Amino acid sequence: MNAIPAASLIQQTGELSAAVTRPIPGSRKIFVEGSRPDLRVAMREIAQARTPTLFGGEENPPITVYDTSGPYTDPDARIDLSAGLAPLRARWIEERGDSEPLDGPSSEFGRARESNPRLDAVRFPDRRLPRRARPGASVTQMHYARRGIVTPEMEYVAIRENQRLEEVSEAGLLSQHPGRSFGASIPPRITPEFVRDEIARGRAILPSNINHPESEPMIIGRNFITKINANIGNSAVSSGIAEEVEKLVWAIRWGADNVMDLSTGKHIHETREWIIRNSPVPIGTVPIYQALEKVDGRAEELTWEIFRDTLIEQAEQGVDYFTIHAGVLLRYVPLTAKRVTGIVSRGGSILAKWCLAHHRENFLYTHFEDICEIMKAYDVAFSLGDGLRPGCIADANDAAQFGELETLGELTRIAWKHDVQTMIEGPGHVPMQLIRENMDKQLRECGEAPFYTLGPLTTDIAPGYDHITSAIGAAMIGWYGTAMLCYVTPKEHLGLPDREDVRDGIMAYKIAAHAADLAKGHPGAQVRDNALSKARFEFRWQDQFHLGLDPEKAQSMHDETMPKEAHKLAHFCSMCGPHFCSMKITQDVRDYAAAEGVAAADALEAGMAAKAAEFREQGGQLYRPD
Amino acid sequence: MNAIPAASLIQQTGELSAAVTRPIPGSRKIFVEGSRPDLRVAMREIAQARTPTLFGGEENPPITVYDTSGPYTDPDARIDLSAGLAPLRARWIEERGDSEPLDGPSSEFGRARESNPRLDAVRFPDRRLPRRARPGASVTQMHYARRGIVTPEMEYVAIRENQRLEEVSEAGLLSQHPGRSFGASIPPRITPEFVRDEIARGRAILPSNINHPESEPMIIGRNFITKINANIGNSAVSSGIAEEVEKLVWAIRWGADNVMDLSTGKHIHETREWIIRNSPVPIGTVPIYQALEKVDGRAEELTWEIFRDTLIEQAEQGVDYFTIHAGVLLRYVPLTAKRVTGIVSRGGSILAKWCLAHHRENFLYTHFEDICEIMKAYDVAFSLGDGLRPGCIADANDAAQFGELETLGELTRIAWKHDVQTMIEGPGHVPMQLIRENMDKQLRECGEAPFYTLGPLTTDIAPGYDHITSAIGAAMIGWYGTAMLCYVTPKEHLGLPDREDVRDGIMAYKIAAHAADLAKGHPGAQVRDNALSKARFEFRWQDQFHLGLDPEKAQSMHDETMPKEAHKLAHFCSMCGPHFCSMKITQDVRDYAAAEGVAAADALEAGMAAKAAEFREQGGQLYRPD
Repeated sequence: MNAIPAASLIQQTGELSAAVTRPIPGSRKIFVEGSRPDLRVAMREIAQARTPTLFGGEENPPITVYDTSGPYTDPDARIDLSAGLAPLRARWIEERGDSEPLDGPSSEFGRARESNPRLDAVRFPDRRLPRRARPGASVTQMHYARRGIVTPEMEYVAIRENQRLEEVSEAGLLSQHPGRSFGASIPPRITPEFVRDEIARGRAILPSNINHPESEPMIIGRNFITKINANIGNSAVSSGIAEEVEKLVWAIRWGADNVMDLSTGKHIHETREWIIRNSPVPIGTVPIYQALEKVDGRAEELTWEIFRDTLIEQAEQGVDYFTIHAGVLLRYVPLTAKRVTGIVSRGGSILAKWCLAHHRENFLYTHFEDICEIMKAYDVAFSLGDGLRPGCIADANDAAQFGELETLGELTRIAWKHDVQTMIEGPGHVPMQLIRENMDKQLRECGEAPFYTLGPLTTDIAPGYDHITSAIGAAMIGWYGTAMLCYVTPKEHLGLPDREDVRDGIMAYKIAAHAADLAKGHPGAQVRDNALSKARFEFRWQDQFHLGLDPEKAQSMHDETMPKEAHKLAHFCSMCGPHFCSMKITQDVRDYAAAEGVAAADALEAGMAAKAAEFREQGGQLYRPD
Repeated sequence: MNAIPAASLIQQTGELSAAVTRPIPGSRKIFVEGSRPDLRVAMREIAQARTPTLFGGEENPPITVYDTSGPYTDPDARIDLSAGLAPLRARWIEERGDSEPLDGPSSEFGRARESNPRLDAVRFPDRRLPRRARPGASVTQMHYARRGIVTPEMEYVAIRENQRLEEVSEAGLLSQHPGRSFGASIPPRITPEFVRDEIARGRAILPSNINHPESEPMIIGRNFITKINANIGNSAVSSGIAEEVEKLVWAIRWGADNVMDLSTGKHIHETREWIIRNSPVPIGTVPIYQALEKVDGRAEELTWEIFRDTLIEQAEQGVDYFTIHAGVLLRYVPLTAKRVTGIVSRGGSILAKWCLAHHRENFLYTHFEDICEIMKAYDVAFSLGDGLRPGCIADANDAAQFGELETLGELTRIAWKHDVQTMIEGPGHVPMQLIRENMDKQLRECGEAPFYTLGPLTTDIAPGYDHITSAIGAAMIGWYGTAMLCYVTPKEHLGLPDREDVRDGIMAYKIAAHAADLAKGHPGAQVRDNALSKARFEFRWQDQFHLGLDPEKAQSMHDETMPKEAHKLAHFCSMCGPHFCSMKITQDVRDYAAAEGVAAADALEAGMAAKAAEFREQGGQLYRPD
């Protein structure tokens, strides 16, 4: 930060690079309208070419996919980072009449930042006045849900989750294997009423701070599409505002459903404002990081008052969920002393240190109901932090971890009493055979509140590849019932991720989340797999690239072996060359079976030697060298 | 190939690049001697630094890891590709007295290549005479095992599998979570007798063609360390001999336990000779690929005679296992007609085409006993190919796939009757919830013969990242009981892997295999995780890198954020910077618990306000900015 002069900073934040904003190849932005004209749900539609005549010549329908990228990939959208995104939800929030604009930030820190002229150059230019619930009111989606109210946010989510599945009429595309759900109960079609019901019972959350009206509603719950989170954030060692906004846009381009801003640098408040104003996805933070900076890094000097002010400061900027490590109880701390890697959560270790220094119970725990009062005035959701999560395989599923999880269950019930939306953070490092125990215990202790896990990493021995060690665990725990997977990049344990690391981490997690949806039997989950595989079989190379999670990477990898444009249409694949293609042979088998009406194995036994000779004559052609 | 003049080819094959031969950082080659002086088992020993005084100052023992890299990473070894590796097993093979050298290749094709002067320039220079079993003899490890003979190969394997676990005396390093074995029965220590017994009952194979005496014995079976295979091979589109040998050395450097040579190019015979002569790991092939080239790619012109000659040709070069698609029966072929991606196995589609063209049963099936006769004369193992494996999620676990698997079970019993070592190839593309069914059926149908799976890929939607889609499935099926995992690179479905793709694919699979070993509870599997995590906790950065699967990548990633040498010793990690380190805080917790004798949670409740104040005074220091 210090190295960047203020003027160039604004300039930089004003312009995103082409790499993060160019449209995603082969697809277009579409909008599905709901019950009111200002409820338009963004999706991405991937066009498909016609099947080559050789394979039947039929039309292939466009495929609709979930889109997290916001307006950035929309060529019709005008992006101005200094103005922020359009406040999509502003009218819905106002219409409810249960919140009111304040005359400025009500946190001490927020006011101090506003009035500091030295920050003019780095401050986001046009700041809306923060809103807060009217006295005595609750503005949480859970509050509405429990009162039977279907909000526009809930309707948006229902439309979004369905991904226009009703438009898919090809039986082949829709067919999928039965899932194994481990107790999930996903309806064939998501209705607004179902969304409401899941939020009301605490089984899903819809993060939607009334001060983040720019966010496109999304839902986190085991009966919805599995979501992923990406972390961004500078640190004392690196990066600045411009870089962080660009990272946000990059992360959502590739599919991050949520982004956590873990910044710990000098302009943490201002960086956050830039990020939120430009974010179409919910933003989460860990407020204790900033609170710690306010006491110059001395954990033992943290107080409830400083923390409270930080919560309000961030809530009024629009943070959608807070990681709160209220389950790190004094009595659990010594249970970590014999661990191989002790306490690895930053938040957890800060609070452990505070507890020991004061020999008092964690003030987040003792003030938990006070925190709930703040949360419900803005609709900030809890992400109850697992401060005692294991940092290595050896420490998995131990007494400290599970003790904390039990306390998180207790806190969930308190949060729900206040109608505050709540999810639970989970591990960490866990070998495969111990993953299920985590999920089952979380469901039991926390009443099916959404589980939000980091990985878990299934081995410690691959620094540099922890996106993979953890994608394995993430896919499994997603299958078992985790609602959102927090990504891990290849740089985990080694350094700060750069742009390619972020992309690799997100891809690994999109894969894990989708593999989980397939395994659970989520309705329609297999449509994209089916379409892509059909395209692959029919040598529709461009369609195969476009239907993939990363069309740019797929195309560039293909071009390394087969750079010529003509090859994109070639009826052979790049692995085997022109005279040796198993897919081509399969097509022969298919033609043969179709021509002969061979539906069952027995039919062949009837003896068709004459036909065999005929086939030999025709088919031989296919293998002749040019 | 054509583009490379012969002279430069020899020159190129004679010199490997430094990248593939430099010693692996932080470790040295060691040899553990067995019952005879010529039985020296290569391993890699990773040195560790002393724990910093702050954390206790104790010595940390060196960690021994399984080493597949052969002499290439041994600075004392003299590498001359034109001479090939030392024939480690030659004396053991001769001593058995059941085989004899021939006066030259006994295959027609082999003889033709020998006598073609145009091949002089590309031929491996000093070719040993091939050996074959004496008339009536069987030279398979299974044959010996069933007769109670413990061969030097079996003893080598026993020593190798134990990885000097008996030298680890630190209880902390040895401690590990109980596994869930799904019926595996792994003894705490592998003995030569156990190896013999597992081979005798067909539950493990020790690929060891008597014409590949250069190979370092290794074993594939569910009660041993999970192995991985890497594929190399040119194609019509790309690459030549020099490149293939370099790929081999690169693949085993990173941990490939087996390598399959899938070449289909012009000098396939000569390329193979170079590879085998320089390979310390077993080499597998798919002989039908070469047989097809001998009939100019016309599958319907394949004959048993051509195939038989190819088997002998390759067996006499030293190929250790053959993929044989003998389970692609005529009656199964039409079952693939309705699939989304039909038959995707190259071998499977060649045979399907042959079956349809002739309307006759697969000649590999009808000649299966003849094939066994050849295999046992050289100790080539079967890798019974899954020619009808699913090529997409939609086609997983269908009638064609499972029909073929049942036939592979029938063929396994025939192979065992001939004492031919046998493993079974498996899918492919399978969503998570259907993986276990594959494993269970394979164990049941094939009498626990080792399963050797490709992936499986758990979703189709990520071209460019299929090393990850498949590592998820590989880890799971490895846990369930698969003995060897065939790697998938990021280029799968898109093109031919380059060097970095091979490395990425191998790393993903080393992770999957190790995660599986941890989950099964393989004795000692957690030692390396424990050591690495302890190093991580103690800020022994170099040890963390060295203990990882890819020390070079870990170091370079760390250096991107923290390039200064001093930082390698820094007591903070690269994620959080110097004033904000959870590991540092944990150490405080630990010191505190130790100092106070706080062993149980209750102890803290006794009230230690005075100590708390003292701690606050001391600990505050740790968070002061410089």
